[in-house]
Amino acid sequence: MRIGYLGPDGTFSQIAANKAAAGTDSELTAYPSIAELAAAANAREVDAAVLPIENSLEGGINTTLDCLAFECDLMITQELLISVSQCLLSNSETITKIYSHPQPVGQSGRYLAKRYPGVPVTFTSSTAEAAMIAAGEDGAAAIGGEALAEIYGLGIVERGIEDVSTNTTRFVVARRDAEMPADADKTSVVFSVANQPGALYKMLSVFDIFGINMMKIESRPAKTVLGAYVFFVDINGTADDENIRRALEIVRYKATFFKVLGSYKAYQ
Amino acid sequence: MRIGYLGPDGTFSQIAANKAAAGTDSELTAYPSIAELAAAANAREVDAAVLPIENSLEGGINTTLDCLAFECDLMITQELLISVSQCLLSNSETITKIYSHPQPVGQSGRYLAKRYPGVPVTFTSSTAEAAMIAAGEDGAAAIGGEALAEIYGLGIVERGIEDVSTNTTRFVVARRDAEMPADADKTSVVFSVANQPGALYKMLSVFDIFGINMMKIESRPAKTVLGAYVFFVDINGTADDENIRRALEIVRYKATFFKVLGSYKAYQ
Repeated sequence: MRIGYLGPDGTFSQIAANKAAAGTDSELTAYPSIAELAAAANAREVDAAVLPIENSLEGGINTTLDCLAFECDLMITQELLISVSQCLLSNSETITKIYSHPQPVGQSGRYLAKRYPGVPVTFTSSTAEAAMIAAGEDGAAAIGGEALAEIYGLGIVERGIEDVSTNTTRFVVARRDAEMPADADKTSVVFSVANQPGALYKMLSVFDIFGINMMKIESRPAKTVLGAYVFFVDINGTADDENIRRALEIVRYKATFFKVLGSYKAYQ
Repeated sequence: MRIGYLGPDGTFSQIAANKAAAGTDSELTAYPSIAELAAAANAREVDAAVLPIENSLEGGINTTLDCLAFECDLMITQELLISVSQCLLSNSETITKIYSHPQPVGQSGRYLAKRYPGVPVTFTSSTAEAAMIAAGEDGAAAIGGEALAEIYGLGIVERGIEDVSTNTTRFVVARRDAEMPADADKTSVVFSVANQPGALYKMLSVFDIFGINMMKIESRPAKTVLGAYVFFVDINGTADDENIRRALEIVRYKATFFKVLGSYKAYQ
């Protein structure tokens, strides 16, 4: 199996990809951005894309959600949870500049404000790029996973600098034309409702009528006008269940936009 | 009145701050980050903070939502909508690198993929910083508002490069110990529900019982464990309305976390 992931190497995406490939005879390919990775799976360049979808501190990963809802025709077949622990990496005694991706910076906000107030933070496109820059600049540090220290020859100044130590990123494995896994017990859908008072509440009442538990709801802009949203909803169960089949039939009929993103086994 | 906004000058935040100050005798102060701006209003260093809260393409501004919910004790007294049109700014014939803040890059994703595939994009902390860098580097371009061209002496390569031309950012004016404006007709609250099946649906049914229209719902991580969320809800009306007073009393009682973020006039 050809598995695509978000490069470069040494990031948490690679750890997730290795976990997805465990026990299979797979070839892993790194892609430079989430959009290019999703497009590669959509064009069947790879059999599966391992996409970061949500972080416990920073929330939904917008690009992945938008790709799944609007840009690609992929089905989620698996989810993976990866514990994320950020380190401050540097070879300098005195740190005068810090590099990292906006997500880890957001996750380490309190630590940075307390220990490095006023030290400028420059955003990079990945933690690996930050580590590469930090390795070559005097006074520079990077924020990223421990694995980067060895790859880029950096010292670990401090471990576990994230604000909350239960920092976890959820990844999904998404494939074109995938069949539903036999052990699936969770379904993700995305829909829009008409711009009318009470429309969202009425739509959610459909799930309630059929006794379906909504595990999660997340809103994202519909990308048309301010105030128009799509809703990502996770429910317990799959379309094999007659109640879910009937509920989703109604949601599909009433929604202004509707898409099933896949059924898969909920991570324990 | 002392009004704080997110600097540096030439960004859309300054345009919003000028709009908030229009017709008043106000002194405007730029702050380097949303967190420092909100903290300044919280510590009464400024009388009001003009905070970007939502973009029609990119969604909620995480730092502002988190500051209002968890970090500060501010009340929203006003909302402002600013039309955002991004330009590609450069003095170079051939563009080999692009600088900007992650939000404008996200807003111009399709344009960049089509016109500048493979050209590396470096994230900066503001569009003004991007413009400053682009002005000094050969082959560099910045993405940002038209106002930056004059301030940093850059040419406008192309106007309106955002993916959807109705790109709008919503700002809120937030103050410590503010009274409810007399013309308020909209209320923002944030709450968490117990981690039980159907808990969110039941909470929303409280608004339904009292005939209250929910204009918006947005979820953000509660920052504890993955799968725990807070919900930002906007409703029509204010606590002067007996139905809303009663509904919010129930929500406050049933919620595991509850905060009124303010009542203010909905932007027409």
